[in-house]
Amino acid sequence: MVQLGLVGLGKMGFNMRERLRAAGHEVVGYDRNEAVSDSSSLADMVSKLAAPRMVWIMVPAGGPTRDTVAELAELLSEGDLVIDGGNSKFTDDKINSEVLAAKKIGYLDCGVSGGVWGKENGYGLMVGGAKEDVERAMPVFDALRPEGPREEGFSHAGSIGAGHYAKMIHNGIEYGIMQAYAEGFELMEAAHVIENVPAVIKGWQRGTVVRSWLLDLLVRALDEDPDLDDLEGYVEDSGEGRWTLEEAINNAVPAPVISAALFARFSSRQKDSAAMRAVAALRNQFGGHAVKKAE
Amino acid sequence: MVQLGLVGLGKMGFNMRERLRAAGHEVVGYDRNEAVSDSSSLADMVSKLAAPRMVWIMVPAGGPTRDTVAELAELLSEGDLVIDGGNSKFTDDKINSEVLAAKKIGYLDCGVSGGVWGKENGYGLMVGGAKEDVERAMPVFDALRPEGPREEGFSHAGSIGAGHYAKMIHNGIEYGIMQAYAEGFELMEAAHVIENVPAVIKGWQRGTVVRSWLLDLLVRALDEDPDLDDLEGYVEDSGEGRWTLEEAINNAVPAPVISAALFARFSSRQKDSAAMRAVAALRNQFGGHAVKKAE
Amino acid sequence: MVQLGLVGLGKMGFNMRERLRAAGHEVVGYDRNEAVSDSSSLADMVSKLAAPRMVWIMVPAGGPTRDTVAELAELLSEGDLVIDGGNSKFTDDKINSEVLAAKKIGYLDCGVSGGVWGKENGYGLMVGGAKEDVERAMPVFDALRPEGPREEGFSHAGSIGAGHYAKMIHNGIEYGIMQAYAEGFELMEAAHVIENVPAVIKGWQRGTVVRSWLLDLLVRALDEDPDLDDLEGYVEDSGEGRWTLEEAINNAVPAPVISAALFARFSSRQKDSAAMRAVAALRNQFGGHAVKKAE
Amino acid sequence: MVQLGLVGLGKMGFNMRERLRAAGHEVVGYDRNEAVSDSSSLADMVSKLAAPRMVWIMVPAGGPTRDTVAELAELLSEGDLVIDGGNSKFTDDKINSEVLAAKKIGYLDCGVSGGVWGKENGYGLMVGGAKEDVERAMPVFDALRPEGPREEGFSHAGSIGAGHYAKMIHNGIEYGIMQAYAEGFELMEAAHVIENVPAVIKGWQRGTVVRSWLLDLLVRALDEDPDLDDLEGYVEDSGEGRWTLEEAINNAVPAPVISAALFARFSSRQKDSAAMRAVAALRNQFGGHAVKKAE
Repeated sequence: MVQLGLVGLGKMGFNMRERLRAAGHEVVGYDRNEAVSDSSSLADMVSKLAAPRMVWIMVPAGGPTRDTVAELAELLSEGDLVIDGGNSKFTDDKINSEVLAAKKIGYLDCGVSGGVWGKENGYGLMVGGAKEDVERAMPVFDALRPEGPREEGFSHAGSIGAGHYAKMIHNGIEYGIMQAYAEGFELMEAAHVIENVPAVIKGWQRGTVVRSWLLDLLVRALDEDPDLDDLEGYVEDSGEGRWTLEEAINNAVPAPVISAALFARFSSRQKDSAAMRAVAALRNQFGGHAVKKAE
Repeated sequence: MVQLGLVGLGKMGFNMRERLRAAGHEVVGYDRNEAVSDSSSLADMVSKLAAPRMVWIMVPAGGPTRDTVAELAELLSEGDLVIDGGNSKFTDDKINSEVLAAKKIGYLDCGVSGGVWGKENGYGLMVGGAKEDVERAMPVFDALRPEGPREEGFSHAGSIGAGHYAKMIHNGIEYGIMQAYAEGFELMEAAHVIENVPAVIKGWQRGTVVRSWLLDLLVRALDEDPDLDDLEGYVEDSGEGRWTLEEAINNAVPAPVISAALFARFSSRQKDSAAMRAVAALRNQFGGHAVKKAE
Repeated sequence: MVQLGLVGLGKMGFNMRERLRAAGHEVVGYDRNEAVSDSSSLADMVSKLAAPRMVWIMVPAGGPTRDTVAELAELLSEGDLVIDGGNSKFTDDKINSEVLAAKKIGYLDCGVSGGVWGKENGYGLMVGGAKEDVERAMPVFDALRPEGPREEGFSHAGSIGAGHYAKMIHNGIEYGIMQAYAEGFELMEAAHVIENVPAVIKGWQRGTVVRSWLLDLLVRALDEDPDLDDLEGYVEDSGEGRWTLEEAINNAVPAPVISAALFARFSSRQKDSAAMRAVAALRNQFGGHAVKKAE
Repeated sequence: MVQLGLVGLGKMGFNMRERLRAAGHEVVGYDRNEAVSDSSSLADMVSKLAAPRMVWIMVPAGGPTRDTVAELAELLSEGDLVIDGGNSKFTDDKINSEVLAAKKIGYLDCGVSGGVWGKENGYGLMVGGAKEDVERAMPVFDALRPEGPREEGFSHAGSIGAGHYAKMIHNGIEYGIMQAYAEGFELMEAAHVIENVPAVIKGWQRGTVVRSWLLDLLVRALDEDPDLDDLEGYVEDSGEGRWTLEEAINNAVPAPVISAALFARFSSRQKDSAAMRAVAALRNQFGGHAVKKAE
């Protein structure tokens, strides 16, 4: 059994603490929200850990994670190990690891997939960093990952940054898969050939080529709301899809499906499209085609 | 100078009559709208033409055109010639030509481009049919096409159907070009780096690689409404874009740009997207991500 | 236990016969290949069945299926039932069902998913037709579908044609999902950030959001050939993807992901692209950019 | 008449010197290639200019331009003005302008369009920077831009960086337009309905909605090589298309056409696609579909 500091006890971190404790590990959590925190400050958390310490960061990517790393660089000591389990961009890992390396503190980046189901099912993990650091943190990874063969729910993807890189690609793929189901759903709804669209989708759960966990979740959503009309077709994106597309550009790799899925989200958030106003204006100019006047 | 029957005196047919008459040709027009018609019925129109007759159809594609062809097959005689200048699908030309061929009446299909500007600038013409029929109708084509070398505003594209096929492709390309400008416009509007977007677009009219007639029209639209916010980003499609994509499918030719332009129009007409409701529902299922509730 | 005639004992039909017999049903198969056939002709097969008969067709879509239906219309009698389990286009079902209805023979269309794994895992089934016919064939469907709740591997999608419509959409989605994984794979291979791409993909099998049966198959393929360089990036398409896109056009539903996946297959089969020769020619014209001369 | 230093006398700079001199301006050019250079070094060029000096940079974007700016910062004096007319990324302009501002040297960025035709037709210009600097350089801009109203071939797009931003968007649009024509060309070539594809395209030059300068160039290319089979469908990209897509991502603007055009270029340069090997492998896994073995 190991001891772990855990910074960030939101939706993900809270559940991870539960899963780690259920596996018998000791977790000292810290969160600004006192109601869930095990310690009064980051310093207090660190003080409760025995050296060599291991601290898992589970706070929002970007500024909050970089700030936490900077603070930990002050609080931790040579030989300690920090693991960033948030959704950081892989380029942040180099920066974060160097800040810590200056104090001889180790660093691992860990992409975590599984969402709110991870507490129960385990989390898919993709890790970047040095082999010896990965070995050292393995009890933690083993507690967090799903049951079954380790290599089916965990990978050591490469050196620092590779874990978040793998997670970024994972999410880019996820965008594409979700959009594929979504297009099929919309087409079935629109064409009125299928009498019971939710029943067809439910019937795809076993035996078919398209069966997947995301399909199971779609069935679950349709069970609750068969036409999905309790919600709006408004979809946020959280960064990884954009970064995947940036990497496609940087590496000259065609990514038509992932980009289409990302653009569909952008469109979903527009009340009105400037581009389509331009097309409407052009049609009106050359063909005298009717346009809809804005109200 | 030739004599021509002209069926359909709407936005396009009316202007074409003007241009033909300005060139010295005799036009006997027929339209259900008595206010613009030169004859009281299709039969009356035909009776005013001297054999061998030449009749140009300029009515909506599909049913109306096919019906007109069927009526003309009854009214015309061996040796007469019918030209369909509407936006018919190329597959209709075979049917229409056979109806007429049974009565030994000739047939040409003619794709017409240029919109409301054609009266002044001339129309770009793409013709399908037999060489001798094309020769016979050449005075009409020469009056309708723009000034300058014939081969720069007119083509004999091939046998029956080839004229409308060429026009279909022309329109598919047009969709793509319009969408390209539109995406650039939206991006400049959104990024707030360019201080005067209409001035930049106006400045592209001479010397640049992207100069075109459509760009001139965009400048014209922006002169009238610099942010294009008098209208909605709602864009119809009139068939040719869909047919182009169908042909891409039939011929296993990738058409990512033309299809993207068509799909952007489909999206522009949706108040809410079932597909994006499905994506929102999935994100909510796995990540507990917030969704917008429909009102 | 029921008795079933089964026409077509290829890769799919052969396996289905095995699975049906394993479930205790009597199957009289017919195939032109005598080595696998249980009967010497279609007529011989029919003669071995007791009325009211049930015959499952599992031959290539289009001509072969329509021909088989026509022959069966001659051989079967009032009250018999034909099930087309092939990959027919949904528009064929109306034609086939009418041919049979003229002889008072019933008809069901059944989309079948699962490929070569269906024998072992069961097949996902989507059925179109009358409720009473579906009930009658249910023992067959129950034997073919996977174990577990019926509604998770089987659906009665609607009236005639709905089964193949659902299968068409299923395959369109399948194209999109496969392309999403494929783009992620290519990007990881190209970027050289991940040290062991197959290990990362294997590690996605449990706990992650992108876990699926197709992912399991990708792991299987990578186990055999880690860089997938034993094969060419040349991908056929079998019709359903094209039909899905046609339906998207017909219903004005945006399908950017499914179309991108289809176009990627079209491109994969081109040695050289005429479109890209045109782009290369244009760049050379305006910019004097170097072009690669064809050999 | 003004005096101008011109750094970089390649394909673009050489022609610009010609056009400027033809307009009566004095140009002191510098290029590493002595055969075309008017001066032996950058310092020599600067020494030949009377203060306050104006220097136009026309060297490759990125390192070469930044290095030239750094050298000029050493050689020039307070009150001089540098104009970067190359294809720099707009983000470089801030850096370059600050290097020069430290020495009180002014800076303008100027996007230049028109390619090898600019010498004859004039160049489309988009400028970023301070109003007074733009006024000062106006004689140079007026000489370089096409004849006709200034605002149709020149724009002051905004503050520093806006000129290159406008040029970036211009090129993104250019990618989309070229791809639209290219898809239409390929489809006509593939479908074999049009008998003379080059004649149809030539016939689009007047009167049609798709007429443009790029179309004129396509006609020119087809005049030289009617099937465009003297060259390969292999297309480079020079940065602006990628940057446009990055900006679309940064601003959450859908850019399906511009991205499709960029990805088509990426694909055109691949001998074999890892993505499509993955799709082929998947189809083989689930369906036993034949794959093409690599040689």
